[in-house]
Amino acid sequence: MSGEAAILLDILILLVVAKALEEIVIRLGQPPLLGDLLAGIILGPTLLDLVEPHHGIATFAWIGIVILIFLAGMDSSISELKRYGKGSMLVAMGGVAATTLLAFTVGYLLGYGFNESLFMAVILAPTSVGVSVAVLAELGLLRVRVGEIVVGAAVADDVIAMVLFSIVYSVIAEERLGVERLGMILAGLGFIAAAFYLIHRYSSRIVDAIVRGAKEEATPEIELLIIGVAVATATSYFNLSPLIGAYFAGLGFAEALRGYGFRERFTLLLNFATPFFFIYAGLLLDPWAALSSIEPGRALVTASSIVAAGMAGKVLGCGLMARRAGLPWREAWIIGFSMMPRAGVDLVIAVSGLQSGIIGMDIYLSALLLIYTTSLSTPVIVQLLAGKRVKIG
Amino acid sequence: MSGEAAILLDILILLVVAKALEEIVIRLGQPPLLGDLLAGIILGPTLLDLVEPHHGIATFAWIGIVILIFLAGMDSSISELKRYGKGSMLVAMGGVAATTLLAFTVGYLLGYGFNESLFMAVILAPTSVGVSVAVLAELGLLRVRVGEIVVGAAVADDVIAMVLFSIVYSVIAEERLGVERLGMILAGLGFIAAAFYLIHRYSSRIVDAIVRGAKEEATPEIELLIIGVAVATATSYFNLSPLIGAYFAGLGFAEALRGYGFRERFTLLLNFATPFFFIYAGLLLDPWAALSSIEPGRALVTASSIVAAGMAGKVLGCGLMARRAGLPWREAWIIGFSMMPRAGVDLVIAVSGLQSGIIGMDIYLSALLLIYTTSLSTPVIVQLLAGKRVKIG
Repeated sequence: MSGEAAILLDILILLVVAKALEEIVIRLGQPPLLGDLLAGIILGPTLLDLVEPHHGIATFAWIGIVILIFLAGMDSSISELKRYGKGSMLVAMGGVAATTLLAFTVGYLLGYGFNESLFMAVILAPTSVGVSVAVLAELGLLRVRVGEIVVGAAVADDVIAMVLFSIVYSVIAEERLGVERLGMILAGLGFIAAAFYLIHRYSSRIVDAIVRGAKEEATPEIELLIIGVAVATATSYFNLSPLIGAYFAGLGFAEALRGYGFRERFTLLLNFATPFFFIYAGLLLDPWAALSSIEPGRALVTASSIVAAGMAGKVLGCGLMARRAGLPWREAWIIGFSMMPRAGVDLVIAVSGLQSGIIGMDIYLSALLLIYTTSLSTPVIVQLLAGKRVKIG
Repeated sequence: MSGEAAILLDILILLVVAKALEEIVIRLGQPPLLGDLLAGIILGPTLLDLVEPHHGIATFAWIGIVILIFLAGMDSSISELKRYGKGSMLVAMGGVAATTLLAFTVGYLLGYGFNESLFMAVILAPTSVGVSVAVLAELGLLRVRVGEIVVGAAVADDVIAMVLFSIVYSVIAEERLGVERLGMILAGLGFIAAAFYLIHRYSSRIVDAIVRGAKEEATPEIELLIIGVAVATATSYFNLSPLIGAYFAGLGFAEALRGYGFRERFTLLLNFATPFFFIYAGLLLDPWAALSSIEPGRALVTASSIVAAGMAGKVLGCGLMARRAGLPWREAWIIGFSMMPRAGVDLVIAVSGLQSGIIGMDIYLSALLLIYTTSLSTPVIVQLLAGKRVKIG
């Protein structure tokens, strides 16, 4: 019974620990994925060394994250971005530019090479505003200018970061930027644009055909997933991240799927599969490996510099751009701090970097520290800045 | 991008080919899993040798089949079995007894050892009446005595076969039947009985607690799954099949979950995950390995003898028992032939036997041939026996 028993035991342990920690972090107002990540950290080499991040878990992890990003694309909407579009774009670009510049400089000053510093800068680029959104909603700031700009900027931010990630990854993985390489990147971006355009244009017809063709008990959702996985897989053969393909495939379906209630039917599969990615990300962390290559003092300096760069980049870049977009200082700072938290996309980029050997365990550890630091501090800071339920905007 | 790209490509190929073949077999009136199995056969060493049954696919496969069997338990109902309970039990036991005896004898005469013959007999024991149910429904025979007995017998049959499988597997895996071994089996069966009893007794409270404790967007289904996977995993540590644990855990919840609409919410996860088990079963088939160890003539004799034993055992055992239960000959034969098809549970047992080295590739090949032979021939035979929509019973 060895084979199945071992497989089932691994999955069972991961599910139980992740679910329990999810319940705890949800009660602390944090997104469930921080519980999944923590489950991986606890069960991996960091603490108990009980479960290995083997091929089975990696398969679950990558399928889970492709589904998540595909659905994130479906949930996005181009029209939503338009309302405070200009402000959002400015804030997003300000945050990405300031963070990557600051992080790259810090990395370079800390003695990392060009590639590693560049990739670290890209890891810090995206934002996960789940925590901020919850806080802003509680303060009554979500449906006003501040909230709308934050939500819009976060979406723009993820897209910019993923495109950036795709390009940087593609360049670094090949270790040179020749004409051929550049052609491949352009071909890949062209493929994604073409896939998005075709899906977007024919999405109503595709959805109609799938739904009408479906027999009883059938699940047309799977055919949609196949399209998402297909675009993601094809994208990865251009040496770009499969996730950007998944995202744009989902975005292509966004409008056609509104009203079909498809999204809700994905919930169980999504909630079952995606935790494995964040658990996997936690299992990959091995701080002892990081500490074996650099001394503790230096590790502390590295980690705190990276965390500080990651926080300052967003606060300053987003805050100043919000101010430039015409918002009063207090609103601008609220936006800046709201854009500080990291989570999903950052982890995806960090995992890819670690697994392909572009970044070392010390930077991976710093990225995870940044995620927990920002998730825990953002609610406190935003509440302080906003004061007690003061309506602004 | 190699790691993720390879993982995603494998999954994509499997999903696309399996879905396409599912659509075809569904149109031929066959259960979709025959399409999944065929996808594995085509993509595996039998034909294209394109995808390997690696650890990632194995993990998907075993999680998928545990979910399937857990839900099969939920769908079963003790009360349904009661209506034609005695007839169903007689038919089920007659079929299992005749098939295992016949198959064991044939195996032994063909020169297989005791263990291999015994295990082969157990592979042939269960029934999958999906195809028969569809045919009987079309003939108007499902909601009358013949149909009720077939459905009841199929459920009883699967349970008997799984218990038999668990015991035989446990005995053969340890290669001796000492007192210790017997104690372990009894302890395992005791554990399953206890788990079933406790779940059944407290199922309403468990379900209430899970549902009431669930936040918005949460999926209490996952907590149920965790219980199923936990019982399955624990069962496997008694060296019994994890699937029998999963089945009885599901059966324990069956009554409490009626009315909650939980079952429907599992559909997408189920339809996404379970095909991987049958694909995996197809990928494991390697007829060339079978033909390298025995000559083609002998392989043909082996395969046709096993297929014949598998068909004759069910037809005679179930048919004669149905007659003994007081049914007229024609109805008895319809029942006998309706009980002939094999599919899911047989495959599960065959995969376990192959992977643990109890049976060789030749018997595995024969088991797969039996599945396709019976699935294709049953509808024709049952329709011939029943005549043109003649109502009986």
